[in-house]
Amino acid sequence: MKVGILGYGNLGRGVEKAVNVAGDMELVGVFSRRNPDSVKTVSGAKVYHVDDLANMKNDVDVLIICGGSATDLPEMTPKYAQDFNVIDSFDTHARIPEHFANVDAAAKKAGKVGIISCGWDPGMFSLNRLYAHSVLPGGKDYTFWGKGVSQGHSDAIRRIEGVVDARQYTIPVPAALERVRNGENPELTTREKHTRECFVVVEEGADKARIENEIKTMPNYFSDYDTTVNFISEEELKKNHSGLPHGGSVIYSGNTGENNHVIEYSLKLDSNPDFTGSVLVAYARAAFRLNQEGVAGAKTVFDIAPAYLSPVSGDELRAHFL
Amino acid sequence: MKVGILGYGNLGRGVEKAVNVAGDMELVGVFSRRNPDSVKTVSGAKVYHVDDLANMKNDVDVLIICGGSATDLPEMTPKYAQDFNVIDSFDTHARIPEHFANVDAAAKKAGKVGIISCGWDPGMFSLNRLYAHSVLPGGKDYTFWGKGVSQGHSDAIRRIEGVVDARQYTIPVPAALERVRNGENPELTTREKHTRECFVVVEEGADKARIENEIKTMPNYFSDYDTTVNFISEEELKKNHSGLPHGGSVIYSGNTGENNHVIEYSLKLDSNPDFTGSVLVAYARAAFRLNQEGVAGAKTVFDIAPAYLSPVSGDELRAHFL
Repeated sequence: MKVGILGYGNLGRGVEKAVNVAGDMELVGVFSRRNPDSVKTVSGAKVYHVDDLANMKNDVDVLIICGGSATDLPEMTPKYAQDFNVIDSFDTHARIPEHFANVDAAAKKAGKVGIISCGWDPGMFSLNRLYAHSVLPGGKDYTFWGKGVSQGHSDAIRRIEGVVDARQYTIPVPAALERVRNGENPELTTREKHTRECFVVVEEGADKARIENEIKTMPNYFSDYDTTVNFISEEELKKNHSGLPHGGSVIYSGNTGENNHVIEYSLKLDSNPDFTGSVLVAYARAAFRLNQEGVAGAKTVFDIAPAYLSPVSGDELRAHFL
Repeated sequence: MKVGILGYGNLGRGVEKAVNVAGDMELVGVFSRRNPDSVKTVSGAKVYHVDDLANMKNDVDVLIICGGSATDLPEMTPKYAQDFNVIDSFDTHARIPEHFANVDAAAKKAGKVGIISCGWDPGMFSLNRLYAHSVLPGGKDYTFWGKGVSQGHSDAIRRIEGVVDARQYTIPVPAALERVRNGENPELTTREKHTRECFVVVEEGADKARIENEIKTMPNYFSDYDTTVNFISEEELKKNHSGLPHGGSVIYSGNTGENNHVIEYSLKLDSNPDFTGSVLVAYARAAFRLNQEGVAGAKTVFDIAPAYLSPVSGDELRAHFL
């Protein structure tokens, strides 16, 4: 199966690594809006300009679109679904129904498959919410994120005057995790679920008290949380906070009469974009296979039988994984 | 959807509870090999003799078969797949390929769906092994069971001369769990993964030393494990060990180049048969729906898209669970 990567940031690099270890995939190349000569790929994959895709409709079986959810994906995924099987990691929850409808219309018209909102949340976490609710109806699900780097929150801090660089960690509150794991089904406020820890590099002579206050009172991002701000040097940031680890847990608590049951799915990831890229690649396999069977239209992780993700045959799956 | 339960032990009772809370299902009744008058159902469900099924082909949309894997299911599931959509919890791993082939042939001929090996292991644990291997190829999966009651091991103790009753708990070794969770990918022997704890009631004057020795040296069941034997009174067994709790974890450790990732799926169940029954009921929903779409043949959890398990519509699933 011939795979193309559209967009080459952290996620594109994660996808590249995952395609390179998939024995049944060939990486056609990376497609970028930048000048191809300026893009160096991790594995030496060929770089094309995004406009070249127009002439490569028969060269790419699945196009993995690694763009941002705010403006890139709502436009790109339906557009490229007109010519390719596509897959994206669209994660603006409120706009998923609209995005699904747009991709569905384009993909159905073209006879292609478009998988949206793939990764770990939305993605693997969503699957676990669905499986748990289906098996034990009437229970309650809790999602905890972290400990991990939130790129959106780090960016928000960087926009503050006097800030040179920043890294923000989202951290689940241990006491909340424990109550949920015990099956107590607590009602938890935003503040009770997560804390936020910030590592901030500031310009020389910057007003740290003002910056700390601006962070802690920032609406949506920080004001509803207990936030800790640590001012550190640029060297320390590079040395101790250059990775993009993440993870978290989906915990579901339900019952069958007097008996309680707790289901937990947890991820501990050294690299958020690498893992997200790996999930995209597994579902890219499914997109291609479904399309080969004549399926067309938009799909999510909910619509795809797990066996489609694996290069292993049904016989072998039943013999070794069941 | 009209559901029948074939076999009425602990698992059948778990299925009964789960069908009763499913808003889209109607429990037609329990079918038993015993005299129906001698069977009392938890919820007052009607009890038929198993032979009545021959005249009820149009009254049952899915038959949930709650028999044993050793002798019941290999015979019953293919037999009833000739007339019904069926589902079972067949868990003899080595014989799954043969059982799948038998159910597949019968179900295809009849135009029915037969889902085999459904529950939590095989079942939800299998799914998590498959998803993890598909997303991060080349990693290693570990399955830990417990802390929970193993009915097979409890039965084995009961067969020893002088034993009145017994309950055996399988317990994961904390140090092994920790090493696996840390992503160390250790090679672990049977003994290093689990310990076994036994609570045994003996006849008055029984030779406890002999019984303890017979337990600890029993091949396959105990000899490869560190086993603790506690002699207790019948009252204590009833008071503290009458439940059938179980659970465990599937832990998968893989990498993307230098970055390591750990995926863990855990269950903490107050009642093993209740939870297994709940999984069977969710997949019974899938069996019926797939059959309504014209699908026929044997399936496992690997072949079924998660959305088929839920009574919630695709639009709502995308809006609330993704």
